[in-house]
Amino acid sequence: MIFLYLCKSVTMMKPSIPKGTRDFTPVETARRDYIFSTLKEVFRSFGFAAIETPAMENLSTLLDKYGEEGDRLLFKILNSGEFAEGIAPDELLNSKDLATRICEKGLRYDLTVPFARFVVQRQNEITFPFKRYQIQPVWRADRPQKGRYREFYQCDVDIIGSRSLVNEIELIRIVEAVFSKLGIEVILKLNNRKILAGIAEAIGCADRIVDITVAIDKMEKIGFDAVCGELASKGIPAEAIESLKPILKFNGDNLQKLNKLEAVISTNNLGAEGIDEMRRIFEYTKALESGLDIELDLALARGLNYYTGTIFEVKAKGYEIGSICGGGRYDDLTGIFGMPDTSGVGISFGAERIYDVMLALNLFPEGIEQTTKVLFANFGGDEEIAALRALPLLRDKGISCEIYPEAAKIKKQFDYANKRNIPYVIVIGSHELESGYATVKNMRSGAQDSASFDKLDTLIL
Amino acid sequence: MIFLYLCKSVTMMKPSIPKGTRDFTPVETARRDYIFSTLKEVFRSFGFAAIETPAMENLSTLLDKYGEEGDRLLFKILNSGEFAEGIAPDELLNSKDLATRICEKGLRYDLTVPFARFVVQRQNEITFPFKRYQIQPVWRADRPQKGRYREFYQCDVDIIGSRSLVNEIELIRIVEAVFSKLGIEVILKLNNRKILAGIAEAIGCADRIVDITVAIDKMEKIGFDAVCGELASKGIPAEAIESLKPILKFNGDNLQKLNKLEAVISTNNLGAEGIDEMRRIFEYTKALESGLDIELDLALARGLNYYTGTIFEVKAKGYEIGSICGGGRYDDLTGIFGMPDTSGVGISFGAERIYDVMLALNLFPEGIEQTTKVLFANFGGDEEIAALRALPLLRDKGISCEIYPEAAKIKKQFDYANKRNIPYVIVIGSHELESGYATVKNMRSGAQDSASFDKLDTLIL
Repeated sequence: MIFLYLCKSVTMMKPSIPKGTRDFTPVETARRDYIFSTLKEVFRSFGFAAIETPAMENLSTLLDKYGEEGDRLLFKILNSGEFAEGIAPDELLNSKDLATRICEKGLRYDLTVPFARFVVQRQNEITFPFKRYQIQPVWRADRPQKGRYREFYQCDVDIIGSRSLVNEIELIRIVEAVFSKLGIEVILKLNNRKILAGIAEAIGCADRIVDITVAIDKMEKIGFDAVCGELASKGIPAEAIESLKPILKFNGDNLQKLNKLEAVISTNNLGAEGIDEMRRIFEYTKALESGLDIELDLALARGLNYYTGTIFEVKAKGYEIGSICGGGRYDDLTGIFGMPDTSGVGISFGAERIYDVMLALNLFPEGIEQTTKVLFANFGGDEEIAALRALPLLRDKGISCEIYPEAAKIKKQFDYANKRNIPYVIVIGSHELESGYATVKNMRSGAQDSASFDKLDTLIL
Repeated sequence: MIFLYLCKSVTMMKPSIPKGTRDFTPVETARRDYIFSTLKEVFRSFGFAAIETPAMENLSTLLDKYGEEGDRLLFKILNSGEFAEGIAPDELLNSKDLATRICEKGLRYDLTVPFARFVVQRQNEITFPFKRYQIQPVWRADRPQKGRYREFYQCDVDIIGSRSLVNEIELIRIVEAVFSKLGIEVILKLNNRKILAGIAEAIGCADRIVDITVAIDKMEKIGFDAVCGELASKGIPAEAIESLKPILKFNGDNLQKLNKLEAVISTNNLGAEGIDEMRRIFEYTKALESGLDIELDLALARGLNYYTGTIFEVKAKGYEIGSICGGGRYDDLTGIFGMPDTSGVGISFGAERIYDVMLALNLFPEGIEQTTKVLFANFGGDEEIAALRALPLLRDKGISCEIYPEAAKIKKQFDYANKRNIPYVIVIGSHELESGYATVKNMRSGAQDSASFDKLDTLIL
């Protein structure tokens, strides 16, 4: 009896999904598809081609690429078969070592490392400069919290194999095109890693560039004073911090900021190069009459250590959510896989945050969640056959439609249409079958009209 | 020295991906997208809405749903953190037990169980009958071989919450619409699990229905005699096998086969019900003048035990590759998660095999792999700015275009266009900049023409 009882309670337990993961309902999927389609449309119009890589990569590809924290956040996949064979009991002591002993594969953590791996593996068949986009999920064993998931999509667009700033310009135009199509007002923040290196050198801390960028990257989150505190705690000398302060507070328009900066770091080669690159980008965007709000932000560093030139970050105006798009230039991404000197530049759109912004600002176009435009009521018999015959005529005209599958009570059928937000119901009852004219009911206005069975599309707006 | 040498050889080792997984190049991705887009377009026109479920499910959701073999083929995900804590050395002996001790999650094995889980979890918010499609990858730790991968896409379309055969009819129409759009000539094979049950009872082996369907499901692969051999080896009595033989060999058109069958199993209630359902489906397809080649195949069983009514299977004509689409009706799929009596019917399209068929029969439309229609040659300076200004004018007209990012030698730029299969190159050199007319070169015909910078779209076909 107890056994039976247990079985039953187990069976009846409501199923669930792993924390940090999500199901997407039809409405949510339609909205997400709208974002993905917009991105793809823009990427394609700029001549970028899609690639896809497998969800699983060899752990040797993924490990040591994202820092210690990243290694810890990789989802590892247990080897198949008798994976435990030959493990000595003392190997149990350390989870980290045991993991690499019993797992050869992991889920991809981002799209950048798989892209670098792809390029190196196929370097002899790829035409460079190689322009690719990639929209796929990634997985991170992060602690789930509001807005942070363990499975989420990245939407990356990169050009690899060209050092030209024209690539930066085209990426800036992609940002403009995407957010203009989505209806999100944004500000694009730019900086250059070479400028940051120049600043580090100018304040006498060239060898501390990583600590300095990591700290000033937190400017927006923790504020100016806390950044200075962090710099001090990392052992940056007080006088260096003092020289840094005015630089980070430079104001004025982009060219004014660059001029002030030049006065401070012009003796530094790398810094001068960074200033020159930024100046040229602003010249381009001016000559091309870009409508985008672009701002040089010297406090923009982005944590990723592989950036070597331009750094991008996009924020939505009117909704506080952090960056919704970001990226930069990297001069040696493929070097980790043995293919040096291949410069690239890319940006990544954060689909989840873009979704949140659009939902909050009510920017999704009306009707994108609508799957069925017309429901044919079902009366069984010859009436049902007539409705089944009429369906493909509408579908051929691009009108999505369905028939209620059973000759249920008419109220139930209309309820179904209302619950699914279907705007038209077409009735072919015995009267209509006889007359050859079907009744078309507009579910929103309540208005009714009629048309012959082969002209029903003319009544659907 | 040895250490350095090892490091270097490791760094230089060409990276690879796990066996049984694949990268998709731009050309392959474009072709796959063509298949997925066609499926989505048809599914939507029939009123189906997309859902998505996470790649990872709780192992408790996945285990015991696919048989012992299926459990073995699940990819399990190692728990994060100190997963090995508290494992006693004697727990190492059995890989299977250890796996469930250190893994809570697994990668989804198909889309059917996650769909059932989704429906049960959201039964109070879903409007039934619920029509959903789902196109996502699944993972199986199968031995990789030609045409069998460890990561592959499933494209499922299901209606749940209605017993009406109208649903079967609409699915048959989806099959017809999809393969007609893709240009693949197919044959749809139908059977009914109730008929198989009726046959099992008629030959005196009602309790052996599973062994019988598993055996006759292999008819096409191993042939008639081997099936009989397997039935005998499973202990089906010789006289039962003898009575089965003529049934499996029934020929004639679909209605003739049904009539012969009726004579044998009509006394069996379930069998008679199955015959009635099949007959009604054939009446529908006749009344609706279906152009699809449909065949009643009494040897069609499909291994999956959850089918309870109609069984579908689609084969391509003119290319031997097994079934490219299949499915059936299930009366109790959600029962495993505690929601009984919810009948559904669905089919799944095999995107990988459809891809192979289309490639072999040369059915992909020309030009779908083309990403860039127009390349602007780059001459630097004001010419570059003029080209950069012209790009958005073409993009606004739906013409994908790009500029070569560097003012490289013109031969290199034309080579790039040829290698990427770009059909048009537009030249704005010093001469063109002066005259205000750009040169448009058709890379296939070699023909040249010219137009003012704002009318270039008129020369692109």
